[in-house]
Amino acid sequence: MFYFVIDILGTIAFAVSGVLVAMEKKLDIFGVLIIAFVTAVGGGTLRDILIGSTPVFWMRDYTYISIIIGTVIFAVLFAKYLHNFRMTLLFFDAIGIGLFTMVGVEKGLAYDLLPVMCIALGTVTACFGGVIRDILCAEIPAVFSKEIYATPCILGGIIYFILILLPFDVTFAYSISILFIIVVRLLALKFGIALPDIYREGNR
Amino acid sequence: MFYFVIDILGTIAFAVSGVLVAMEKKLDIFGVLIIAFVTAVGGGTLRDILIGSTPVFWMRDYTYISIIIGTVIFAVLFAKYLHNFRMTLLFFDAIGIGLFTMVGVEKGLAYDLLPVMCIALGTVTACFGGVIRDILCAEIPAVFSKEIYATPCILGGIIYFILILLPFDVTFAYSISILFIIVVRLLALKFGIALPDIYREGNR
Amino acid sequence: MFYFVIDILGTIAFAVSGVLVAMEKKLDIFGVLIIAFVTAVGGGTLRDILIGSTPVFWMRDYTYISIIIGTVIFAVLFAKYLHNFRMTLLFFDAIGIGLFTMVGVEKGLAYDLLPVMCIALGTVTACFGGVIRDILCAEIPAVFSKEIYATPCILGGIIYFILILLPFDVTFAYSISILFIIVVRLLALKFGIALPDIYREGNR
Repeated sequence: MFYFVIDILGTIAFAVSGVLVAMEKKLDIFGVLIIAFVTAVGGGTLRDILIGSTPVFWMRDYTYISIIIGTVIFAVLFAKYLHNFRMTLLFFDAIGIGLFTMVGVEKGLAYDLLPVMCIALGTVTACFGGVIRDILCAEIPAVFSKEIYATPCILGGIIYFILILLPFDVTFAYSISILFIIVVRLLALKFGIALPDIYREGNR
Repeated sequence: MFYFVIDILGTIAFAVSGVLVAMEKKLDIFGVLIIAFVTAVGGGTLRDILIGSTPVFWMRDYTYISIIIGTVIFAVLFAKYLHNFRMTLLFFDAIGIGLFTMVGVEKGLAYDLLPVMCIALGTVTACFGGVIRDILCAEIPAVFSKEIYATPCILGGIIYFILILLPFDVTFAYSISILFIIVVRLLALKFGIALPDIYREGNR
Repeated sequence: MFYFVIDILGTIAFAVSGVLVAMEKKLDIFGVLIIAFVTAVGGGTLRDILIGSTPVFWMRDYTYISIIIGTVIFAVLFAKYLHNFRMTLLFFDAIGIGLFTMVGVEKGLAYDLLPVMCIALGTVTACFGGVIRDILCAEIPAVFSKEIYATPCILGGIIYFILILLPFDVTFAYSISILFIIVVRLLALKFGIALPDIYREGNR
């Protein structure tokens, strides 16, 4: 139940981030809906396609599609107030990437994939919804150049595999990893932490 | 036989629309061919990938690839006359989205998916060839902001499920839905009907 | 062993081309890594998704991911010297498309696909890593408008099927086709050969 609520909150936060980007591009309501949809489920969809888990996860029941349609209607109606909730949304988003990363890692394990591939799938689940959102809006994906976003996901995945190797309890490792991702992402936001600059000293 | 002819006409119309966009971007003949190809079969390909129907539909015989290559050669040779047939092409295109939507809905039903997912797959089949075409040309997809294009597909899908629930004959429901999509799309083109503007009243 | 070395060299060349494009866009190290990764394995990934060969090839062992991560670290550290090796990289790249095309053709044959589809899959394997790289960088794919790149792949695939029909030995046909692609690509680079211009004579 707890994970279900977290999953819903993460989906809502991702969908709202899609609505905000799509409205900035002045898309019509169909465009806004599609961008919100791919932002919320695009990462998990790409993960499912890469491992061959089809029909992809959101096709199996009405949960995701209802939540996203509801979120879009609500977000479009109250668009002018959304910016007041910017911090709340970023907080949900951080919770979202924490949970989605570990959902992706779990799915990789269920397909007997190597740890590195599980971590890659976790990162894809958490980050590639935003990548597809940005591509559909003809922008270079924000995750490739702004403050760290994918890095906490990768690190969280590594921590999970270290913890279960030690060996810690799986549920414990799972929770710690999610918490780690959320905290690092929030710290990165608060202090504007980006990856080390690779363009200094006339590197090019 | 009738559906086969319609399918061919729709594929040709979609391929030509790809040629027109690609030539506007001054792509070479290979680029034009690829853009025409993804415009014509991209929607159905994405549908097949999402539900796991692989190898995807156009790989099974020579029909689609021959028609598209033929269309591209013809369209490039007679490019300067193509604009005279703009209305004819838009007419074929409207027929194409009507038929392709219902092909997608049928395929969803064959995979035992929920009605909403069938409608989503129908819309993907009809509209996402154009989305991929625009992404490959580094443009924001036209379907997200111009006059209505996806909306008739969604409505047509809904009408189909209402009709078969009443219950009407499946073939009747199928034909009515296709006709509905074509007529609404043509009316939207003629009168420049777009979705309700969500940006009025200082909404943002 | 010989093919393995060629495969590695091709992967490195593709990854470096990704690093160069990503660094031009000033992406951070995560962005550079992802672009290098999709450039190197994107074509084969799309091929595997289209035919339903999942989990996709690079998920099965550590070979590709290790080589790409190593290449990216190396390429970023020595970025300012990379341009001195431009010709070497283009040479590796030509070897890469030659081999990757035939890897794709082989995979199509293993799935009992028609010759034309095998050639299409070979071309996708060789060229679509670069297409995805350019889309992620919000550019129109270079392969659609620069000097010939996909054409040698298509011709090489056709030559392969002609040779095995005559019938020549499969290994002989395989090697000749790879060699043909490499040579034609290198000649195209040296003499700036592009596809025939379809925009002359007021064609539009």
